[in-house]
Amino acid sequence: MCGLIGGADDLVHFSCTMDTTEFRRRGKEMVDLIADYLENIEQRTVYPDVEPGYLRSLIPEEAPEDPDTYEDVVKDIERVIMPGVTHWHSPYFYAYFPTANSFPAMLADMLSGAIGCIGFSWAASPACTELETVMMDWLGKMLKLPEDFIAGTHGQGGGVIQGTASEATLVALLAARCRAVRMILASDPQRPETGITSKLVAYSSDQAHCSVERAGMIAGVRMKKIPTDQSDKYAVQGETLRRMIQEDKAAGLIPFYFCATLGTTPSCAFDHITELGPICNAEKIWMHIDAAYAGSSFICPEFRPLLNGIEFADSFNFNAHKWLLVNFDCSTMWVKKRSDLIGAFKMDPLYLKHDHQESGMITDYRHWQIPLGRRFRSLKMWFVFRMYGLKGLQDYIRKHVELAKEFESLVRADQRFEISADVVLGLVCFRLKGSNEVNETLLKRINNGRKIHLVPCLLSGQFVLRFALCARTTESRHIREAWRLITQLAEEVMQELPH
Amino acid sequence: MCGLIGGADDLVHFSCTMDTTEFRRRGKEMVDLIADYLENIEQRTVYPDVEPGYLRSLIPEEAPEDPDTYEDVVKDIERVIMPGVTHWHSPYFYAYFPTANSFPAMLADMLSGAIGCIGFSWAASPACTELETVMMDWLGKMLKLPEDFIAGTHGQGGGVIQGTASEATLVALLAARCRAVRMILASDPQRPETGITSKLVAYSSDQAHCSVERAGMIAGVRMKKIPTDQSDKYAVQGETLRRMIQEDKAAGLIPFYFCATLGTTPSCAFDHITELGPICNAEKIWMHIDAAYAGSSFICPEFRPLLNGIEFADSFNFNAHKWLLVNFDCSTMWVKKRSDLIGAFKMDPLYLKHDHQESGMITDYRHWQIPLGRRFRSLKMWFVFRMYGLKGLQDYIRKHVELAKEFESLVRADQRFEISADVVLGLVCFRLKGSNEVNETLLKRINNGRKIHLVPCLLSGQFVLRFALCARTTESRHIREAWRLITQLAEEVMQELPH
Repeated sequence: MCGLIGGADDLVHFSCTMDTTEFRRRGKEMVDLIADYLENIEQRTVYPDVEPGYLRSLIPEEAPEDPDTYEDVVKDIERVIMPGVTHWHSPYFYAYFPTANSFPAMLADMLSGAIGCIGFSWAASPACTELETVMMDWLGKMLKLPEDFIAGTHGQGGGVIQGTASEATLVALLAARCRAVRMILASDPQRPETGITSKLVAYSSDQAHCSVERAGMIAGVRMKKIPTDQSDKYAVQGETLRRMIQEDKAAGLIPFYFCATLGTTPSCAFDHITELGPICNAEKIWMHIDAAYAGSSFICPEFRPLLNGIEFADSFNFNAHKWLLVNFDCSTMWVKKRSDLIGAFKMDPLYLKHDHQESGMITDYRHWQIPLGRRFRSLKMWFVFRMYGLKGLQDYIRKHVELAKEFESLVRADQRFEISADVVLGLVCFRLKGSNEVNETLLKRINNGRKIHLVPCLLSGQFVLRFALCARTTESRHIREAWRLITQLAEEVMQELPH
Repeated sequence: MCGLIGGADDLVHFSCTMDTTEFRRRGKEMVDLIADYLENIEQRTVYPDVEPGYLRSLIPEEAPEDPDTYEDVVKDIERVIMPGVTHWHSPYFYAYFPTANSFPAMLADMLSGAIGCIGFSWAASPACTELETVMMDWLGKMLKLPEDFIAGTHGQGGGVIQGTASEATLVALLAARCRAVRMILASDPQRPETGITSKLVAYSSDQAHCSVERAGMIAGVRMKKIPTDQSDKYAVQGETLRRMIQEDKAAGLIPFYFCATLGTTPSCAFDHITELGPICNAEKIWMHIDAAYAGSSFICPEFRPLLNGIEFADSFNFNAHKWLLVNFDCSTMWVKKRSDLIGAFKMDPLYLKHDHQESGMITDYRHWQIPLGRRFRSLKMWFVFRMYGLKGLQDYIRKHVELAKEFESLVRADQRFEISADVVLGLVCFRLKGSNEVNETLLKRINNGRKIHLVPCLLSGQFVLRFALCARTTESRHIREAWRLITQLAEEVMQELPH
């Protein structure tokens, strides 16, 4: 019985049989199912062979009136779900960027589900809020972030777990918008607010993630793309930003936000933040750093220089749920001044007030984010950091970079191919020397083969294949097998070309 | 070994021992830990007795260099975490609104974590997208939503899982803003867009959730609160909205969005959507319905009339993660025209394109929401709907309403107390007859006693106690015990009053 024992007698006729006793049994079966799935994932077709709409016909059109048995539900996992799953944790998955999956994170998530608290305020579950603050400090220290970003017991900054980098970018943009409007109103109190907003201008790289442009649409502000080019490795240079700012100011606009990218999605390019930061600071422009993918690598001393310039930033974000073994969602964001974020969002209805609200010692994370509700996500960080240790996490990052370098050497050793961008971390951008069409055909063949999975990008108008190290269990033999498949298909494609 | 077997030899020195074999063991222990926790939750102090900052001193200041043992981590759950947890699933928890917690949902979430796909597009994991569409149809049919909201195979509408109701409100507002701007530009192409935005005006009840006002701040549009009063049960009436619209139009503003609430947070009041809907339709105002808490009850025929008027809405949202046994996060949202949502957000970089993109048969949910990434959340719906069946879910709702009615009778039978708002579903608003101060004192005593947990609200300037049925396992005996505690503390408080 699922909770209807006792109470009004006439209601005790339903019979979901999943009580704690049954959960002990089924939960353990599920643990085995999961272990089996991950142990044998390599044998599955990485990219599913289904047509749009495949699933609807496999299940009823409506929910059952009376409960199904658990056996039926479990049977349907293989029948209904698995044929349509893209297996992101297969060692043959090289698409997009990685998404994390580790056992310590899964164990923590089970616990988080059971505690099932909603941590919108400190009082709603103090442990949920406090562990998050401390875990963000732990991670900030692993990254050697400037002291300003660490909450400690008296810091003005600190960290928060957002759902995704898209949300972090947007939250930073909204905070920047609010700060800009306030600064202008402070010097010119008569100026109408809408008149200010319509003059605001934000900037990002033309290589920035689509969510940056989208954040501009949501916030209703102008977002300009700063041109990059291959000769500068697809990075934004200080000089280009400086020129755009001057032009825009001359045209009566108000520059207020710059989203720098460390590790762009197309090619893992790094904007020159040591040049860009001082410009932003001088112009009172909020600099947000989006290092969604690359951020995890900064825990290694050899990659930490990529983050130099962080001291100029107002906010910094990366997805621990990408490359740091913490399952989705866990997008870790830090700000130098928490008051900047809070000011953009704060709402305090009576039903959310609590005794400790004004103590200054505590954090109500609902003021730091778009959603009100939030899961107990810091448990995942705590389990992963402790079960791997800093060294384990560093080794994991290094392993992926090593494998990327190995793949790069395979590509470079083949005269028919070229590398399209510097291989800095775990992403290799490459292509067949030749037309975009031939590369498009090659990629289509690769993905239709369904043995490995890749996605493309455009670099300087060229269609490029992205080979991203993704799965936790990828080894050298998988890389070599992937390369064997790619070259075999390339051979086919090239033989079909008209001479 | 966590994935570093093989590969570059010099890297194989780290030793997170959590491989699949170890996960089989630890996962099963975690299942038992969870079952034990939930079986004995009643014995725990529902509201924690810790001071802000309690946690930091209990754990190290930095992450360990080398891995901790799993035993150490598990030991710390009771030592570090549990003392600071507000136990939302204790049958003595009556604060805020419920958040769901059921065993079928937890099992599904374990599976979702293991599959660990990111479902931003159909191709990124077809099963993730398609199960979501069909589950939203199942749930839409349980609610007897108008056909327009059902995706089916050729519908123009359909459902999506958002993280929280706050996001749904915002997404609807952004879609409405985009639609309004386009409509005006269609008739007046020369008009500058910022000039339009600055004239837009949105509306919601003065009882609406704080996230509605916040959505207005984020979108940068004027949001006006429509006054309600106790004589009308804190509901928005058609006449009031009509008058405000006329006044605003006369002043040159452009009304474009109304967020109706079914089941407000303070008192579970219901706006008169059968009156409000036709006004919105006539004025081409987007009507969004936020039924975050109450929505789950509409699966019961006896509560379905509360949703009458839904046919006038453009979008509808409630939190299945509140009262429908699907663990957080699962905020279910439907729209009549998916093109309205998609139009507000669409971005298609090459790395997210896929072959089926333009087929019309498929859905890329990233265009329906703020974040790009998303978990495989529909698995939770599927497990819960099947393991409970519609009848089981209905019985669960009815049980909570019955218990609320039981608590209401207890209050009504005591001359010292009064009921402050109609008890329609699982929320009872009540107070001691007398000053706000005496009620504030009573609430403070209740929460300091830590045996039960409640939060307050303000209704017509009166400080009111909210008694919300929350936990899945709450029974009549818990309600009676809660009432015994409340009356005992009320007695104390009243004896201390100066005569």
